Amino acid sequence: MADSLKLAVAGLGTVGTGLLDLLAERGEAIAQRIGRRLEVVAVSARTRDKARGGHDLSRIRWFDDPVALAGDANADVFVELIGGEGDPAKAAVEQALKGGRHVVTANKALIARSGTALARLAEAAGVTLSFEAAVAGGIPVVKTMRESLAGNEINRVFGILNGTCNYILTKMALEGREFHDVLEEAQALGYAEADPTFDIGGFDTAHKLAILTSLAFGTEVALDAVYVEGIEAVTIEDIRNAQDLGYKIKLLGVAARTEDGIEQRVHPTLVRKGSPIADVDGVFNAVAIKGSFAGDLMLEGRGAGARPTASSVVADICDIARGVRIGAFGVPARQLTPYKRARMRAHEGGYYVALELYDRPGEVAAVARILADEKISIASIVQRARGSLELNGPRPSPRDTAPFILITHDTLESAMRRALETIVDKGHAVAKPRMIRIERL
Amino acid sequence: MADSLKLAVAGLGTVGTGLLDLLAERGEAIAQRIGRRLEVVAVSARTRDKARGGHDLSRIRWFDDPVALAGDANADVFVELIGGEGDPAKAAVEQALKGGRHVVTANKALIARSGTALARLAEAAGVTLSFEAAVAGGIPVVKTMRESLAGNEINRVFGILNGTCNYILTKMALEGREFHDVLEEAQALGYAEADPTFDIGGFDTAHKLAILTSLAFGTEVALDAVYVEGIEAVTIEDIRNAQDLGYKIKLLGVAARTEDGIEQRVHPTLVRKGSPIADVDGVFNAVAIKGSFAGDLMLEGRGAGARPTASSVVADICDIARGVRIGAFGVPARQLTPYKRARMRAHEGGYYVALELYDRPGEVAAVARILADEKISIASIVQRARGSLELNGPRPSPRDTAPFILITHDTLESAMRRALETIVDKGHAVAKPRMIRIERL
Repeated sequence: MADSLKLAVAGLGTVGTGLLDLLAERGEAIAQRIGRRLEVVAVSARTRDKARGGHDLSRIRWFDDPVALAGDANADVFVELIGGEGDPAKAAVEQALKGGRHVVTANKALIARSGTALARLAEAAGVTLSFEAAVAGGIPVVKTMRESLAGNEINRVFGILNGTCNYILTKMALEGREFHDVLEEAQALGYAEADPTFDIGGFDTAHKLAILTSLAFGTEVALDAVYVEGIEAVTIEDIRNAQDLGYKIKLLGVAARTEDGIEQRVHPTLVRKGSPIADVDGVFNAVAIKGSFAGDLMLEGRGAGARPTASSVVADICDIARGVRIGAFGVPARQLTPYKRARMRAHEGGYYVALELYDRPGEVAAVARILADEKISIASIVQRARGSLELNGPRPSPRDTAPFILITHDTLESAMRRALETIVDKGHAVAKPRMIRIERL
Repeated sequence: MADSLKLAVAGLGTVGTGLLDLLAERGEAIAQRIGRRLEVVAVSARTRDKARGGHDLSRIRWFDDPVALAGDANADVFVELIGGEGDPAKAAVEQALKGGRHVVTANKALIARSGTALARLAEAAGVTLSFEAAVAGGIPVVKTMRESLAGNEINRVFGILNGTCNYILTKMALEGREFHDVLEEAQALGYAEADPTFDIGGFDTAHKLAILTSLAFGTEVALDAVYVEGIEAVTIEDIRNAQDLGYKIKLLGVAARTEDGIEQRVHPTLVRKGSPIADVDGVFNAVAIKGSFAGDLMLEGRGAGARPTASSVVADICDIARGVRIGAFGVPARQLTPYKRARMRAHEGGYYVALELYDRPGEVAAVARILADEKISIASIVQRARGSLELNGPRPSPRDTAPFILITHDTLESAMRRALETIVDKGHAVAKPRMIRIERL
């Protein structure tokens, strides 16, 4: 058998312990499979004297400082499981790459923020930078895009990339409960963080999307250019209306090539019932990719958790052990092209709009006129029974009001925004209009 | 840029032409991506003077004999797109491997029949044997199992691996039409062959399953050990009964580790509605894998067609161009272990059973007794309205009969078979009992 592959592991939290579990359980089988032993030779973590799932670390060298660990000349691969876009994770990864060591990381924030520079650093040093675990946990989407779709032009990739949001939206739909109610339950069950902003605000999804964008289009990572809306404003009424119209509501991250540039957007989205992505429920993640030759491809699985994440970390390590050397984003890092942002106002697509109008003659006609003036064409309209709305509390106006729910044909986002502003400005809307984008699949 | 990778392509049918299309459209982009040009230097096909999608082959060397082509010292990679388990495909692949050339093939029959020997031949010669396109067309399931799940123990893999069958079953369910009616339409539309036996009899699925089994369990390929039932006997009544009970019927290929050995089975299967595999409709394929760390993973996409197949062929070629060298089945070929077959009679699972009983006192009690004697426990029962059955033609008996539909808890296959034999032998059944296995997901 060839020499063992020596690993320096920084970070022994959930994922780090998952990695140790995997190596303990599967180390022999992996060595048989790849012809080399994977050996943890050094570790670092915040506190030394803590139980790590029963793993005996006494014979493994300990570093208090992950950057020093990354510089350890004994290791072949630096495994970064610290997390966070800044130091010490960033400094440690840079140190490892500069020292000519391969890096495997599960750190989405680091790659979404500094992926281009780190990929170039790795390329200059002739080593590998891999991050399968940073996007969609145990789902092999990075490898699929980097290698399996190498012959394809990709024009769109989208996915359900945050299990917390998908769990909440699924629960709302199944049980007819409002967002805050389900969120509290999710927090109590440990499916949502005490401060859930990063997840429900769409930021976690944005990080993963920024990485997928670069894999799909060979562009520099551009996290700041992602348009982000979270799920906080989705109501149970919207979900019911969507159902009546044949849709489900999911938080999607979408990256698409348009005439204007490349769109990167994260927002609640109406997806048609019966489409593969609409059927992805609960904490599951999924990524859908349209390749110019492969056609529609969807990968669905566990997007988080110690074991699925460790599975992806080990896949990257095994590739390095087997001598696989492929650029971090599939193309040579020096060839990553500047990201050209498509302005959100130039987005074209269908829209779901929920308006609450005064129930008096001429209101619907006036709204229809405003939409027509912006060349917005209506595909369908729903009128819901008044009763279900009354339950939501006192009316905002003493007068009777009426919900007006519509789905548009493809429309320019700028036109839609202007129309809604005009509807509000002219005093037709009792409440703030709600608008949710539709993704044609 | 490094030297070009020289390809010898045998077979210029649908997939071969798809490959030429892909290289023409995407050749430049691929060269940028992988740092090497892919160059077709020689081809062979049955007839020389045929239009090949407008591709000019005049400057590419022509061979009448694919085996001679495989021996061409000019090529780095032999791409086998002839098909068929025997010669000339087999002889050509052997010739290429012995001559130290990498082989990429889309030939499921060849790999399902001779995969072990060919993998060993490749290993001995120090070259790569790749066959992503042989299983599930454009879906990267081979790479996922071979590389992305390298750290996992896999205990079960199953899939919808034949688009023709899935199309027919989907149509039957959606339109309430009988099998032969839908099959004729599928033939007229080109979704089914004039002789559809290979597809609808489950044999195509069995070939793909045999390959997945080796990837999952590291065992020698054992096509002959696959238990195969096709979809010919599935009735619209079964589909309706399944729906009432919360299931859909799919043709699955299932490979599972049991105490008795490894099961490989292809048969119509009840899968619970709402499970990811149940939602895969029409011509789409899907493979579901349970990894001990990754958890449940499902890949869904185009399982056939020139372009998806070419996409997978090119992915394999790009890997070779980039220097990726991984054993054909993920483990070193010399380590593939003998396949130990789990007998079908030792299979344990749920069963759907549709009986047509004489409608007279004591019949149901007698049948229930027979089931109980075999320790078969009933999970649920459906009684369908008589009317829907009358439509199927004259009754087999002048007396009134009654359908008796049931779902069992986990049961031993041998017990189930004995019970059904006894029910028939004792004269309780008007028609041959229908039995369909249930897969717990």
